[in-house]
Amino acid sequence: MKNVLGNSITVTLFGESHGEQIGAVIDGIAPGITVDLDFMRKQLDLRKPHGRISTQRVEADEPNIVSGVFEGKTTGTPICILFENNNTKSKDYSKTKDLMRPGHADYTALEKYHGFADYRGGGHFSGRITTPIVAAGAIFIDALKRKGIHIGTHMKQCGTIRDIPFANYREEIAKVNDLTFPVLDEKAAKEMYAYMEAAANEGDSVGGILETAVTGLPAGVGEPWFDSMESMLAHGIFSIPAVKGVEFGKGFAFAEMKGSEANDSFRMKEGKVVTRTNHNGGINGGITNGMPILFHTVIKPTPSIYKEQDTVNMGTGENVSFRIQGRHDPAIIHRARVVVDSVTAIVLADMLALRYGTDWLYGEA
Amino acid sequence: MKNVLGNSITVTLFGESHGEQIGAVIDGIAPGITVDLDFMRKQLDLRKPHGRISTQRVEADEPNIVSGVFEGKTTGTPICILFENNNTKSKDYSKTKDLMRPGHADYTALEKYHGFADYRGGGHFSGRITTPIVAAGAIFIDALKRKGIHIGTHMKQCGTIRDIPFANYREEIAKVNDLTFPVLDEKAAKEMYAYMEAAANEGDSVGGILETAVTGLPAGVGEPWFDSMESMLAHGIFSIPAVKGVEFGKGFAFAEMKGSEANDSFRMKEGKVVTRTNHNGGINGGITNGMPILFHTVIKPTPSIYKEQDTVNMGTGENVSFRIQGRHDPAIIHRARVVVDSVTAIVLADMLALRYGTDWLYGEA
Amino acid sequence: MKNVLGNSITVTLFGESHGEQIGAVIDGIAPGITVDLDFMRKQLDLRKPHGRISTQRVEADEPNIVSGVFEGKTTGTPICILFENNNTKSKDYSKTKDLMRPGHADYTALEKYHGFADYRGGGHFSGRITTPIVAAGAIFIDALKRKGIHIGTHMKQCGTIRDIPFANYREEIAKVNDLTFPVLDEKAAKEMYAYMEAAANEGDSVGGILETAVTGLPAGVGEPWFDSMESMLAHGIFSIPAVKGVEFGKGFAFAEMKGSEANDSFRMKEGKVVTRTNHNGGINGGITNGMPILFHTVIKPTPSIYKEQDTVNMGTGENVSFRIQGRHDPAIIHRARVVVDSVTAIVLADMLALRYGTDWLYGEA
Amino acid sequence: MKNVLGNSITVTLFGESHGEQIGAVIDGIAPGITVDLDFMRKQLDLRKPHGRISTQRVEADEPNIVSGVFEGKTTGTPICILFENNNTKSKDYSKTKDLMRPGHADYTALEKYHGFADYRGGGHFSGRITTPIVAAGAIFIDALKRKGIHIGTHMKQCGTIRDIPFANYREEIAKVNDLTFPVLDEKAAKEMYAYMEAAANEGDSVGGILETAVTGLPAGVGEPWFDSMESMLAHGIFSIPAVKGVEFGKGFAFAEMKGSEANDSFRMKEGKVVTRTNHNGGINGGITNGMPILFHTVIKPTPSIYKEQDTVNMGTGENVSFRIQGRHDPAIIHRARVVVDSVTAIVLADMLALRYGTDWLYGEA
Repeated sequence: MKNVLGNSITVTLFGESHGEQIGAVIDGIAPGITVDLDFMRKQLDLRKPHGRISTQRVEADEPNIVSGVFEGKTTGTPICILFENNNTKSKDYSKTKDLMRPGHADYTALEKYHGFADYRGGGHFSGRITTPIVAAGAIFIDALKRKGIHIGTHMKQCGTIRDIPFANYREEIAKVNDLTFPVLDEKAAKEMYAYMEAAANEGDSVGGILETAVTGLPAGVGEPWFDSMESMLAHGIFSIPAVKGVEFGKGFAFAEMKGSEANDSFRMKEGKVVTRTNHNGGINGGITNGMPILFHTVIKPTPSIYKEQDTVNMGTGENVSFRIQGRHDPAIIHRARVVVDSVTAIVLADMLALRYGTDWLYGEA
Repeated sequence: MKNVLGNSITVTLFGESHGEQIGAVIDGIAPGITVDLDFMRKQLDLRKPHGRISTQRVEADEPNIVSGVFEGKTTGTPICILFENNNTKSKDYSKTKDLMRPGHADYTALEKYHGFADYRGGGHFSGRITTPIVAAGAIFIDALKRKGIHIGTHMKQCGTIRDIPFANYREEIAKVNDLTFPVLDEKAAKEMYAYMEAAANEGDSVGGILETAVTGLPAGVGEPWFDSMESMLAHGIFSIPAVKGVEFGKGFAFAEMKGSEANDSFRMKEGKVVTRTNHNGGINGGITNGMPILFHTVIKPTPSIYKEQDTVNMGTGENVSFRIQGRHDPAIIHRARVVVDSVTAIVLADMLALRYGTDWLYGEA
Repeated sequence: MKNVLGNSITVTLFGESHGEQIGAVIDGIAPGITVDLDFMRKQLDLRKPHGRISTQRVEADEPNIVSGVFEGKTTGTPICILFENNNTKSKDYSKTKDLMRPGHADYTALEKYHGFADYRGGGHFSGRITTPIVAAGAIFIDALKRKGIHIGTHMKQCGTIRDIPFANYREEIAKVNDLTFPVLDEKAAKEMYAYMEAAANEGDSVGGILETAVTGLPAGVGEPWFDSMESMLAHGIFSIPAVKGVEFGKGFAFAEMKGSEANDSFRMKEGKVVTRTNHNGGINGGITNGMPILFHTVIKPTPSIYKEQDTVNMGTGENVSFRIQGRHDPAIIHRARVVVDSVTAIVLADMLALRYGTDWLYGEA
Repeated sequence: MKNVLGNSITVTLFGESHGEQIGAVIDGIAPGITVDLDFMRKQLDLRKPHGRISTQRVEADEPNIVSGVFEGKTTGTPICILFENNNTKSKDYSKTKDLMRPGHADYTALEKYHGFADYRGGGHFSGRITTPIVAAGAIFIDALKRKGIHIGTHMKQCGTIRDIPFANYREEIAKVNDLTFPVLDEKAAKEMYAYMEAAANEGDSVGGILETAVTGLPAGVGEPWFDSMESMLAHGIFSIPAVKGVEFGKGFAFAEMKGSEANDSFRMKEGKVVTRTNHNGGINGGITNGMPILFHTVIKPTPSIYKEQDTVNMGTGENVSFRIQGRHDPAIIHRARVVVDSVTAIVLADMLALRYGTDWLYGEA
């Protein structure tokens, strides 16, 4: 299905970094859902570049919803959300057209599209294309919230600096969702920001790890084969640019654990089945167990750096050294946070719609 | 699509641990592909329990192909492969029906299927169901090999014991594919085996990390949104029981790297574009770059342990302590290896078929 | 998706006319649904050849359910139903391997599968492969019945002989479902049977038109684009061998009608919205309106006839004349009836599951 | 998948009759295909209302391609085509909001979308939404033409007036594609036009039958189960508003034929396998046989008529009589022609891409 995410609810993405407009089509969403444009703008703002640690290309990012919303509510028919590209400097890119930027998709796009892709600013591969994902995600994040499902992500690690891990999920989700720079520990936040600034000063870039939690999901959602909750979330998350790893619960730390440490004991608590620990990140056998979902996403350092790099000039077939021009982000992990939340919301809404029907998301409770 | 993996080529799975038969249906495979039953049996043997570090339930695992293969070659129509379940001791399980085994899918299956699922031996969630995946995978692994694409997996880590990482992919793939206990370094192999035995003696279990490499893939396979190569592989791999994390290339180690370290420089080599390093695991922007694909999969410790555990009795709603009975694996990582290879082969064959057409896999070259 | 029908609920088909076993895998069905084997056998019996107007190949058609059903009810995991092929005379076919039977799929299969398809008895294209469809359909027909949804089909036309059209759907559905030769009017039934016998005597074959009705469907099921109720039903029905046309309500007769005749007026009746006529066959804008669904399916004359025919010998590349050998049906329309009902039930169950959720079919009311 | 047509190549539709913009997203198309805007405008013009036999609402229908086309060629990434709605008179509709127009989707949309759908001008159900289908179709019709595949449709029947059936497909396709009123026989064309005008004068509407032919398709495209060529084409065609029947080759006339008349004999002709007749419409066993595809589509009379009609007022729950206001088409069959061609092209391009790979459509030969 290529540029389509989802089964019962789908999001189709289109657009290029320097094209006229970019956007998304949401299909299969229940009718009657309030579309809160202020919340959408707030989410879009979290994705926007801010300050020295981001690109200097700033777009208005005003969503233009041209279908599927009538009198402030979803109609149940496809929603198309458009964004204009205005602040583009396409001349920056034509010069480096034949130079395959290391870590970027220039070479793979060339192979896949036989030289016909729009190369300007990364074209369809640009992080810019996450803008409509955030707009679509805002509708689902908001609708899930009304059903008691809350999603939040913070920067667990950046370089060697670590934030406090999620512990009281529900409160911490609320807290990080109000932060532009999503770090729970103030000291860690300052250090991470300084680490990013230092990289910017060096013409270099940094990566990090996001921690995402979801509370309020019912038990029983997901499939044993092949659409496990981990499969479906990972499928979506791995399509976000720069994501190179996803782990659930203890994740890679399970390698050094024993079964007696790894298993989460079940207990009755106020008439409800819970687990004492949550090492499995709310998922057993690919299906939600009612505990919070917890997963980590690693974001590699932004490939656009200003240092001299080696590459191939595809026009001449020669090995060359060059420096990337243009405007780029020394770090995107803080901006990627809201993209991860958005993809998570879309995937969960889709899986809930499959299980409970198209109309499940409809209504305030 | 639930129990179906793939788009152009699909594998549909069915069966329960203690049901009459289990199996898979392969659809969309090209006609004319030789089905090597000896190779299939060899692959199935790699999945089979062996010795003290595995369950004592051993099945014949003789594949019965009832359709889609005619005179030794695929017909192009669906292949159904069946396996009989013989060595089942169902009475072992009825006693613990109401006891939700920690780390298992008992509770989530109960919630999802409202108590109608076959609870014996984990039912449809059992690792036993990976048998037909391995049989299906054998056909694709073999067919891809004839097209110059090689897949191999070793145990990178078990507990704190580490194997040598893949370096000369092509030779090491050949080597590990001949090993029942897939570890490159002999000393590490002995230590891992001893670590598993020790866990078995304690009634405990262990996990670990698999490293998988694929060589010979053409550049240009995968999609930017939302079917990136990472998305598609992770979707499949995360549906394997006990998998809780997947990372590509440097994966989570990217968190501490700078862009200047993370980027893989492009170079011309013998008229071909290559990268000097392979930190990105052969994938840029979700699309193969022609370098080997490299990814890691973490397998959590087997949840079936013989130590006393706390849980809930769903019949009475009471908190209880209990010990699991039956036959179980103190470690499955060495057996999971061939399942990871099989899922990888299925996903790659599907993506290659989408890109190059249904008949691409057909023919010896 | 090739051999898979459905989205939330899927049926995957496998097998060849002269292979070892044929079967189907049902995925996505709700747990807790009673599987009535006697009803399944009754439905299979309606598909079986009977008497002089059918092939002399008669199989036991005893369904072997090897997964997904536990203690008489669906588990919610995939159901695999197997049938053995016993009464095969494969030597009949090898002689005519290179002779492309007119009206059959011999030539198209050769082109598609490059000569690797199992040619015996039509292979995967054989009407025999409808057996597992009927078994799968029986589970859904029965489950839908418990939800108040009834499906029935009669032979509206055969040659120039016409049955009484459906008028009092609910009672007529009950009536035809008890008839092996599904014709409402006894006189028409006798004439149609005689017409088929006459064709058999001439070594020729006949076709006809089936009329299918569905009562009890809620209003609001279907999609405007592109999964209209007509689209989804037609997709399934057109995959049944020999089907060459599908029309809803007045169908092709609309060509000579005016809008003032074609429109179905809405009326309130006992607090419910109904239409005065049902020219649109229960569907407006691709979505059910709560009136009975009504559609017609044309079945072309069976292509296997005993008269001399012209064709090409693909071995020699020469034009030849030949007579088909083997055992064949002079008419299949009366047997196709239950296949149409089965596909209808599968498609409707899938669409209802998408709209109302996976569990909708579960429970007696 | 709801508003998405296709598997490897997809078209996603959005928009409402009186919304701001309508459009389509094409995904999975090969890179390097020339997008001929003049041809697209010519196709759009065939869909536009002209003269007394059509609605008086005329839109500019200027396509705005905002992504996926770069320097006049497809990039291989999603193409979004937008159209503005300007000539809307929304006040016409608010008055009749509660009156369910017979034959329209008002009532079914109300049931499906719980009253949240945009009711103005039929909303998402409007024939207006076929505009982006025609724009998308133009790209595929043109690209298929360059590969030697030609599609054409004429009005076979309108009322009781009949056009000459297709006989010399290739020339007739070229001829009808140049006609705004697609009738081969000039006398029949005049009579049909007069029949439509008479209906317009009476405030009534008419339907008819379209005949579509496709030449140049290779043999071997399509699937036996469940994605037969007939299934895939019918799926698409039945989603076009007002379509109530589709038949291939002799279609419903097969009911009165014998096998000896229905079978198409194979013959060698200039080194190629052909059939002497084409009763099966170029498809055997669901797979193309290399002969022209031939199918008929019945279009019901437009439901919007100016005569007094009975219906229900959903606001009051009362039976009422009313007259439809607003601007409507007394006939749409001549405009539907290009929509049928467009859907046919999209479905065929998708099936060819699945069989021959994503890049198949790329290049001039």
